[in-house]
Amino acid sequence: MRNKLACALVLAGVLSPLLAQAGPQQMLLLIDMLKENGTLTEAQHQQLKAAMMAEDPAPSSKQPLAQQTLPLSASEPVDVMVSTQGGSVKAESYDGRSSFQLTAQIAADAAWYDSDITDMGNAAEIRYARIGAEGTLFGPWEYELEIDFAGEDVGLKDAWLGYRTMGDSRFKVGLFKTPFSLEEMTPSANQTFMERSLINAMTPGRNVGVGFETYGGQWSLAGSIFGEGADDGDDRLDDEGWGRSLRGTWAPVATDTRALHLGLSSTARTYGGDSDDEAVFRIRTDPESHLVDSNNYLLDTNQYETKKSKYKIQHMEHTTSIGVEAAMVHGPVSLQGEFVRTYVNSEDYMESLDFHGFYVAGSWFLTGESRNYDHTQGRFGRITPYSNFGWGEGSGAWEMALRYSHLDLDDQDIEGGREWNATVGVNWYVNPNIRFMANYIVVNSEPDAAGEEDDPRIIQVRGQYDF
Amino acid sequence: MRNKLACALVLAGVLSPLLAQAGPQQMLLLIDMLKENGTLTEAQHQQLKAAMMAEDPAPSSKQPLAQQTLPLSASEPVDVMVSTQGGSVKAESYDGRSSFQLTAQIAADAAWYDSDITDMGNAAEIRYARIGAEGTLFGPWEYELEIDFAGEDVGLKDAWLGYRTMGDSRFKVGLFKTPFSLEEMTPSANQTFMERSLINAMTPGRNVGVGFETYGGQWSLAGSIFGEGADDGDDRLDDEGWGRSLRGTWAPVATDTRALHLGLSSTARTYGGDSDDEAVFRIRTDPESHLVDSNNYLLDTNQYETKKSKYKIQHMEHTTSIGVEAAMVHGPVSLQGEFVRTYVNSEDYMESLDFHGFYVAGSWFLTGESRNYDHTQGRFGRITPYSNFGWGEGSGAWEMALRYSHLDLDDQDIEGGREWNATVGVNWYVNPNIRFMANYIVVNSEPDAAGEEDDPRIIQVRGQYDF
Amino acid sequence: MRNKLACALVLAGVLSPLLAQAGPQQMLLLIDMLKENGTLTEAQHQQLKAAMMAEDPAPSSKQPLAQQTLPLSASEPVDVMVSTQGGSVKAESYDGRSSFQLTAQIAADAAWYDSDITDMGNAAEIRYARIGAEGTLFGPWEYELEIDFAGEDVGLKDAWLGYRTMGDSRFKVGLFKTPFSLEEMTPSANQTFMERSLINAMTPGRNVGVGFETYGGQWSLAGSIFGEGADDGDDRLDDEGWGRSLRGTWAPVATDTRALHLGLSSTARTYGGDSDDEAVFRIRTDPESHLVDSNNYLLDTNQYETKKSKYKIQHMEHTTSIGVEAAMVHGPVSLQGEFVRTYVNSEDYMESLDFHGFYVAGSWFLTGESRNYDHTQGRFGRITPYSNFGWGEGSGAWEMALRYSHLDLDDQDIEGGREWNATVGVNWYVNPNIRFMANYIVVNSEPDAAGEEDDPRIIQVRGQYDF
Repeated sequence: MRNKLACALVLAGVLSPLLAQAGPQQMLLLIDMLKENGTLTEAQHQQLKAAMMAEDPAPSSKQPLAQQTLPLSASEPVDVMVSTQGGSVKAESYDGRSSFQLTAQIAADAAWYDSDITDMGNAAEIRYARIGAEGTLFGPWEYELEIDFAGEDVGLKDAWLGYRTMGDSRFKVGLFKTPFSLEEMTPSANQTFMERSLINAMTPGRNVGVGFETYGGQWSLAGSIFGEGADDGDDRLDDEGWGRSLRGTWAPVATDTRALHLGLSSTARTYGGDSDDEAVFRIRTDPESHLVDSNNYLLDTNQYETKKSKYKIQHMEHTTSIGVEAAMVHGPVSLQGEFVRTYVNSEDYMESLDFHGFYVAGSWFLTGESRNYDHTQGRFGRITPYSNFGWGEGSGAWEMALRYSHLDLDDQDIEGGREWNATVGVNWYVNPNIRFMANYIVVNSEPDAAGEEDDPRIIQVRGQYDF
Repeated sequence: MRNKLACALVLAGVLSPLLAQAGPQQMLLLIDMLKENGTLTEAQHQQLKAAMMAEDPAPSSKQPLAQQTLPLSASEPVDVMVSTQGGSVKAESYDGRSSFQLTAQIAADAAWYDSDITDMGNAAEIRYARIGAEGTLFGPWEYELEIDFAGEDVGLKDAWLGYRTMGDSRFKVGLFKTPFSLEEMTPSANQTFMERSLINAMTPGRNVGVGFETYGGQWSLAGSIFGEGADDGDDRLDDEGWGRSLRGTWAPVATDTRALHLGLSSTARTYGGDSDDEAVFRIRTDPESHLVDSNNYLLDTNQYETKKSKYKIQHMEHTTSIGVEAAMVHGPVSLQGEFVRTYVNSEDYMESLDFHGFYVAGSWFLTGESRNYDHTQGRFGRITPYSNFGWGEGSGAWEMALRYSHLDLDDQDIEGGREWNATVGVNWYVNPNIRFMANYIVVNSEPDAAGEEDDPRIIQVRGQYDF
Repeated sequence: MRNKLACALVLAGVLSPLLAQAGPQQMLLLIDMLKENGTLTEAQHQQLKAAMMAEDPAPSSKQPLAQQTLPLSASEPVDVMVSTQGGSVKAESYDGRSSFQLTAQIAADAAWYDSDITDMGNAAEIRYARIGAEGTLFGPWEYELEIDFAGEDVGLKDAWLGYRTMGDSRFKVGLFKTPFSLEEMTPSANQTFMERSLINAMTPGRNVGVGFETYGGQWSLAGSIFGEGADDGDDRLDDEGWGRSLRGTWAPVATDTRALHLGLSSTARTYGGDSDDEAVFRIRTDPESHLVDSNNYLLDTNQYETKKSKYKIQHMEHTTSIGVEAAMVHGPVSLQGEFVRTYVNSEDYMESLDFHGFYVAGSWFLTGESRNYDHTQGRFGRITPYSNFGWGEGSGAWEMALRYSHLDLDDQDIEGGREWNATVGVNWYVNPNIRFMANYIVVNSEPDAAGEEDDPRIIQVRGQYDF
């Protein structure tokens, strides 16, 4: 018998490249034969079949073998299961402590402008072309890396390393979004409208620094200390000094179909004293339409550069912004609003310059879905339609949305302009990973000191895929 | 028994998507039962258990579990098989409806110039360094994302989302190649020569827009409506308006070793009326050698910029191009040719400016392979050598090729120049993914109004890997 | 029986992590046993074997089936095993001849400057954000592609295709590091200090070309012939001509905990004779701190540009550099040193300009690990701590390090400056893939002809993840 076994093993070893692995068909065939032969009883046969139909708790594949005494060395490969989620690819070790996932986002836009004074010109573009990787390493360590290839601004979006501890808390170091504003913290792929509102011009965005995040059953808290962004654009000062940010949210209601969210955030930056004399501080924004060329932005505190004003903000000391947020979800209906005020202190001004803005927005899913609130980060997540178009009989999810937003960049002698936008949006969620969007924007603005109105109308559409 | 077996196999086939794969639990359960029944001896039972505890050298994976009532939700991971193709990695769901594949292309070039008048200087470069991802999502939805990192033009190549319907038709939105010209539609990795011919200067290339593709047993048809490219270089106008393109191909013969291809394409663009007065329309091309610096291109309708001409093309109204294609494959021999004519209409010219060019090329596989014609897209695909070098006894595939090309950019007072190139090429296909190329190019040109000839000779070589 | 089954299931559940999945070997063994026991008939046995050898329609398991006569065609997918290593993902074909692996490196830095004369300004940045892919194809063919997205220099790092032959030798073509200097050849992720020493300014770095590498039991040899870099910065000449490089190393001792390394390398470049008259040759370096803006580098042979000198190096003929290396590892202690001298020949100088520098460095692992010497490439590899922090009870590895470095860029009338740096470093290796670093640098420099000293102090820290 010993020989027989050895022989079988050797044979199996030699043959194995030529053999298909033992799959359910062969197993089924075998147990059917054994039952027919009377080797297995009818009851045994049924139990075996049931066991095969039950979900296999083993990850199907090669499993991490015994390594009881020492923690698994990181330099040894650990076995993984691979899965797809929306067409992506994810590899995860059997114990769930290490994982790697590819992420991507593609969005193609077209826009038509009924220009008023500023000439905007129709256009099409790739709005997002992002590729990223995220993963965990031995449980507590996490990382994310995301790059955007759209336009000429090829560059890093996220690049951080995190350590998860005390259950639900995380320390981060690297490049990531400074916690401020519900709209800013919600990923671009999950926004209800094609572009964030006018007030987004006052958020600090992504910066290099260290951060802390935690949450409880109904709340979340995040803070960070940060230097500059990854790639200083021309609208930033050379020496930006250091900033800090804090955001807290509270969600007395947070179920799958109902949520009530309240949030407060503040951010501040102290500028380096030895800053270049030529450096200019600037807040500016497109009219909620990215295809507008940056030379044609309506609101800009540095209208000096476009020759529309003789004043500009220099010799910065510090800036402080505060934000107030509220949102609610009630079945297919949701409401959301934010107010942000920014104080800018420069050596050239006795009093702070004071800019502010707000938006209120509502959405209604005609197909009954609910917006997906995540209380652990105080933000909204991906929408999963009840049915998927293009597979089976589904038509996906349909959403109607309205937004009214305002930004006032006029204060003292700075004439950054004022703008009021009303937007109507329609979103078609084909499936959880694909959606099409259309926005119609009515812009009312007084862009500069002349007080003349510039009131374009904008139609813009988007096709988006992300995973 | 035969029937019984067939029946069991059919049953297994039907049930298999609903079954977990035979895993260790079921196997353990089975051998426990068999031992209890007295079918297996205690020794056999122990030996089987020991064999199961040994590490399984065969890779394996999980299969999709029962999800009978609803279509599989996109937000749940579906199980995948992973495979490599030419060293790449591909993950595909069990039902084949979702997939993800990484693609890449690396090409390193060196060139030596026997300059005539224009000084070209020897050099080496990375010609392509592309990484991409493509996939399908729930069957009908497809996407592709490809980025090129070579040189300083890091940027998007493809970024589109497609919907496949009515069997063989596809709608696309995003950034992709505008259908025009056999040579343009054939991927760079599958070109017979290192660079496309002179007429490629008149193709629209990649643009952001919407498209439609379909094909039948012997034909293909593709059309698109598009705005601007992803990243407007300095040789393009600011407001390019909108373009449209249509290409049809007919292949009365299309087998593995024989093909006859005929094609017609047209493309047109209407420029925005409010275009910048300073904007200049430009067609220009290197002498089929990419390492020539763009300041040293021989042919250029904007010789004004290089001070060789006092005329330039401005105040664009529209352009129209037409292309005629033919190709044939007969075993190891192939012939291919194209003619393109472009009409340029500007407010400054009473009559259209008329530029045109053509090429004819032939190739012969010494090792007997045939060029791989794809009638569904009317283009050529990857060459699979009969043998692979470096594994076993093979020497790969060897191909000799000849091309003659011509471009005439002189019309009215625009002196863009005229050029006639003859190229000899040798290609060594080491295996389907690796090839080495060498081209010797004899250039004859009259680049400008002076009528003086500039006739360099060029040797260039390439090593390429793509998957 | 019910209990028995439940018991078996529980047992299976408990044991499953220790069990390999039921693979073809175990299945074969079982059916062989059952046939031997008379449970299965000969016909049943044959049918089961046939079913197992037939191609398995279940994905999980497609294995490279018999293809005995021809080598496996590269266009057919071969089945793979997937594993993670440090959170990465690797796919490898069953026969080990084809593989694909993703690599990544993220490093976030912050620096504080106690400036002396040159104003340096505190800052934070993403120092590295690299993504790469490497793999083998049919055994002998290899490739690597790596891109860095940090800062504004998004660009290729490695892009090459290699052919492995004669056992341990490899030919390479593409973009890769020119062999020169122990410190340069050791990957950035494995450096003992945050930045390489001052002498790194004299290494040729990455260039496009062809190379050869080989090694024996105690030695390695690498050479290359190369053109320009992938992306010529503004500190390089337009026509760099061609260079060649050779490096040999000898390691009389090379065990896991002990090593003695000696190395010699030389590199030279001959410049194109027709180089632009305006082109300036330049060697310059930051004070071992990357966050210093390049306009504030202390040492620079082109101080002409910063108006500090009236001389610059033009009309290049050729440069030659030689390097001498030594290193030793003795348990947790290691020493390392290099000396580099560069001769610069220009038409404007009768005699060669002669620049030189050196460093000596030592490190001590408080936790007992040894630096990981790789004699096949004559360089240092990744550190694997004895314990990992964040999983189990480990605290990772701790290392103290000291370095003294010098660079002299003064010769004849070129006043590039002289610098002496002393660095103290502390490294915490959390696990093999994550580490935190802190460096304190005491800089002493005489940057220009004025002879005035500029002696800043620098503190810099880094968090790094790489796989």
